[in-house]
Order: sequence, then C-alpha cells, then structure tokens
Amino acid sequence: MTKERVCIIGSGNWGSAVGKIVGENVLKHKDIFEAEVRQWVFEENYKGEKLTEMINRERENPKYLPGIKFTPNIKAVPDLIEASRDATVVVFVLPHQFVRGVCEKMKDHISPKAKAISLIKGLEIKPEGVTLFSEEISRKLGINVAALSGANIADEVAKERFCETTIGSRSEQDGQLFFKLFNTDYFKVNVIRDYVGVELCGALKNVVAVGAGISDGLGYGSNTKAAIIRLGLMEMRKFGQTFFGTVEDTTFFESCGIADLITTCSGGRNRKVAEAFAKTRKPIDILEQEMLNGQKLQGTLTAQEVHQFLTARQMTREFPLFETVYRIIYENAPLESIVRDI
Amino acid sequence: MTKERVCIIGSGNWGSAVGKIVGENVLKHKDIFEAEVRQWVFEENYKGEKLTEMINRERENPKYLPGIKFTPNIKAVPDLIEASRDATVVVFVLPHQFVRGVCEKMKDHISPKAKAISLIKGLEIKPEGVTLFSEEISRKLGINVAALSGANIADEVAKERFCETTIGSRSEQDGQLFFKLFNTDYFKVNVIRDYVGVELCGALKNVVAVGAGISDGLGYGSNTKAAIIRLGLMEMRKFGQTFFGTVEDTTFFESCGIADLITTCSGGRNRKVAEAFAKTRKPIDILEQEMLNGQKLQGTLTAQEVHQFLTARQMTREFPLFETVYRIIYENAPLESIVRDI
Repeated sequence: MTKERVCIIGSGNWGSAVGKIVGENVLKHKDIFEAEVRQWVFEENYKGEKLTEMINRERENPKYLPGIKFTPNIKAVPDLIEASRDATVVVFVLPHQFVRGVCEKMKDHISPKAKAISLIKGLEIKPEGVTLFSEEISRKLGINVAALSGANIADEVAKERFCETTIGSRSEQDGQLFFKLFNTDYFKVNVIRDYVGVELCGALKNVVAVGAGISDGLGYGSNTKAAIIRLGLMEMRKFGQTFFGTVEDTTFFESCGIADLITTCSGGRNRKVAEAFAKTRKPIDILEQEMLNGQKLQGTLTAQEVHQFLTARQMTREFPLFETVYRIIYENAPLESIVRDI
Repeated sequence: MTKERVCIIGSGNWGSAVGKIVGENVLKHKDIFEAEVRQWVFEENYKGEKLTEMINRERENPKYLPGIKFTPNIKAVPDLIEASRDATVVVFVLPHQFVRGVCEKMKDHISPKAKAISLIKGLEIKPEGVTLFSEEISRKLGINVAALSGANIADEVAKERFCETTIGSRSEQDGQLFFKLFNTDYFKVNVIRDYVGVELCGALKNVVAVGAGISDGLGYGSNTKAAIIRLGLMEMRKFGQTFFGTVEDTTFFESCGIADLITTCSGGRNRKVAEAFAKTRKPIDILEQEMLNGQKLQGTLTAQEVHQFLTARQMTREFPLFETVYRIIYENAPLESIVRDI
C-alpha cells in the first residue's frame, strides 16, 4: 500500500496551528502517512530573512504563531507547485480570497486521486447563489473535498487547550483518513456527512456575532444575548434547509454549530467590533482601521451578501435577525431594532 | 363563557417578575381572564411591617424585587387557601422544597377543572427514579400541569429586557391559554408539547454550568468552555432520551435548551461558585456560606443526585461529563479531569 503524502496550503495563524497537529499525527500513523509534510508558505521577508527559511530553521512560524514548535517533518516550501507535487492529501487553510488563484495554479499538477479538506472560513454569497469553498475547490481540481470547522481559536489550539472540531465528509473513507490526520487528545474530531452544514455554520455564525455584539454594546444583558444567539442559530438552520435541502438538524449540535457560535459570540472580533459600533456609532470601516489594522470584518460583509442573496429571492422577511443586522450596519436602522424587529 | 381566575403561588424574585407580567396580561385579555390575580405570599416581617401589606400598598415586593411596580390588580394574600380559592389557572413559582407541602394543603380546595403551570426549577432525582415537579403537582392535585423554562434571569425580565421562554404543554388548548398569560413584547413565549424536555433542561443545565465554572477557574479559555457546554447539552439530550423516551431533539433548540444553557454558563451562581472552587479548592459548603449566604447550590446537588441515579443503573460511564463534575466536587478528583475524562 502506498502511503498518503500530505500537503498544507497556507501558513497563517490557523494554518500554523494545524501544521503542528498534522506534523505530529503523520508521525503517529507512519503506516498510513509519509513522514514529510510540505506546507506552502507565501514567501515574505520577516526581520530581514525569508519566512520559509526561518520556519525551517526555527521549527516555528515566528510571524503568525510565535513560540509554538512544529515537529521537524514539517517543511515550509515557498513554491506552490513544488509544495503540492505528488500530494495525495491536501489541506486548504488560507484566506478565501486566494482560493481561486491557488486552485488555478494547482489544477494541472494535482493527482485526480488526491483528496482535500477545506479549513477555509466563509462562503461566497452572490445574488445568483451561494458557493461553498469545498465545492469550488472540488470543481476546479476535480477531486473530493471535505470541510473542517469548529470552536477552534487558533492560539488556544496551538497551546493544546482541549476543544472539539467537526469534519464533514461525503466519503466515509476520506472522513476516517482525515480523522487520523487531525484528531488528538486535545483536539477531538467528530466526523459527519453533512459537509454543507459544516461550512454554512462557519460563515453565518459571524452575522449572529455582530447581532450579539450590538446587544452587548447596548448593555442588554445575558437573557437578550442568549435569545439573539438562539434566534441566530434558528436562522442559520433555516438558511441551510431552505437553500441546501441536505443540511441536518444534528449538525447544529456539533462543534461547528452551537459550540463555535458560543465562542464567536463571547470573544471574537465580530462581536467586539459590533459592540464598539453600538457604543460609538462610528462607521464600520473606521472601526476596522482602528481595531483591526484595516482588515475587513467577516460578519458585516457576510450580512451584506446574505441581504443581497435574500433580496434577489424576496425572502428578507423570513430571516429577520440577519436582515436587522444588515439594516443596522448598512442602512442606519436604530440599534434597538436588534430586539424590536427579530 | 366564565372567565379564568388566575392565582400565583410564590413571590420570590422570579415569582415577583412573573407577577408583573401576569398582572399586565390579564388586563390585556379581559375577555379571557378575571382582572384580579391573587398571589400567595409567604408572610414575613420586613422592616417592621407585614410583607403582604407592604406589597399591596406599595404595588411592589420591596424584599425580593425592589423598584419594580405591579399593576394594581395583583393582590398579595398570606393565606394559601384563600389565595387559591376558585382559581382556574394556577402558576407555581416557588422553591422546590415547598411543593409537596403546598400541594397537600391545596388538594381539597382546588377545582378539578383548574389547569396549572410549573415555573419551579429543578427535579427530584432519587436512585429509584426522576420526578418532574409538573407531574408531582399533577398527581397531587389531579389536574393538568404544563412547564415554563427559559433564559430568564428574573431581574432582567423585570426590567423588560428582551428575552424568550419556552412553555411545554401536553394540552394544546392549555398551551394557548398560557401563551396569552405570559407572552409580551419583551418576553416571547414559544409553546411546545415536550413539557418533559422543558423541565429536564431547567435542572440539568446547572450541572453543566458547574463544569463550565471549573474550566473557567482553570483558565482554559473559550474553545474548552464551548466544548464543555456542547458535551453537556449532548448529555442532557441523552439523559432525556434514555430515561424519558419522549424528549425531542428540537426542544434543545428552544430557549429552555441552548439559550438557558448559554446564560447559565456565562453568568449564574453555579458557574461562579464552581470557578471559585477550582481556584481556591475550598469545600462547596464553605463557598456556599461565603458566596451565597449559606444557600445551597443547585448544580452540585443535582450532580450528586444524577450520580446516585446513574449508579443504581450502572450507567455512570455513559454520562462522562455529569460523572466527572460529581467526582471533582465530591470525590476529590483532579480538576483537570474536567477535560481529560469527558
């Protein structure tokens, strides 16, 4: 039996935390996996040196996850084609705006027998329809793609704090392989079939977190926040069941569902920036400058995309929380409508 | 059509918040309810005066919910029989240890056509079996009893902060009546059939909150806490489905399920005392003295009862979180087992 050769595409904060887990697990399962794991790292200069060279020498990513050591079998590679050559298992963990370009470059080099898993956060929601990144990758590369999502703040995972995660995989065989690649004592994997639900939760939760943050900014207390979280979960479920008939109720009981929603609505940048918005009424782009170094907030963008998608279907009224979040952020609706209109 | 005559049994913090809502709602639905609502108040001296007299003069309960005004149709009555005479709708909202005695006194006076609703927190779990208070009241009084539970911190409800609640009622007709009695703009009622699930959630959530508090005390962060909450929810569901086959998955999506669990695990005395326990390792009864004026903590008691119940059935292993909470609190198990053993 030929062993699986794993490649990781991406090396940010989450990609590095995942690199640590994958590096350890392939050594634990030497019968299944080749020891070497190539990790594609977008090359940049860091403190006067190439980032890939620093990673390979120091066994850590000093820019995105300082202080956390990788096993020596992780090899940072700046060239995408070289990193993914001969890979049979591809882990996608990069910002969603790079997915298309990366797949375009990889598509003539990847084996049709490879399997992939997407750890990419978000969805592409356009008025015409919703695209899951797992499906987008699958289409571009002609291979099966699973999805992983859960209550997984990268820094806590890297410190080996106990948590859970959910893998959605159409193929049971791939699901078992990914289980071996990711599961550890402190990072507990549940494998389910409903990859669509896994990905939807990971994107829509951020809209709910904006609502929870507005409630916090208004000082509404924990009954109200719990109600917003619950109503948000119900709209996530309705969105999935309306536009993707296959989404299962039980998916929302998984780590990718309620657990991630709880984490996102208690800590999390979406909640925090929305709280500041409610308190200061400064525009979101100003707050993004002040609080996120200009990075874009996911939850508000997703709220806008969901609004356009629902408007095209004349269904905004059936998702009052999503719609109210949109109207508060983009149409100057009163903050109080977060409870009045849902 | 004769109108419904409402009586409230109990007048603590939650009973007073509920008195405010019920008082307003019977006036809103004059076609259905008599205006006068009698509220049984356990008579005590407060600042040199009888509590019932103060309530009836000041239109508020100065001891348990100061500053919140009742409508004038709420009448505090110190005699239980007088309070419940001719009542056709009885709202039970008192500490669970008084339920038996109160029912004993009421049973010869209550109309067999009356309907009741239990807002009592907790269950009676003995090695022989689990008793729901709604069923206990139903048996003693020979009437139908529904249940109400949700993410409803009394002070926040009294201040009209938006929240939701769940009513579980076997009878759809009674469910609609209770909807009219409790639903307001700021206190949104969902009526479901699964009264068993509603009551189970209200008791078992406190065990989960003790687990969440231990995690907080250890400084484990939000991934871990979200995992404990999720695993706790799954054990609540398994407990319901194993010992009460009728409990529905969808009940856990209601306010009585995830929303109440979220509130209880973020604020809440069970979480707080458990956090202090993990930090100081002082025995629970000392912490009850120091933090709760000697009142008993619900979550630890319930954990012990659940343990005895499961032990009698040789099923402790199937509920690892409940069992680990028990062993940490009562058997000196290491705090870290809260993640290691679940």
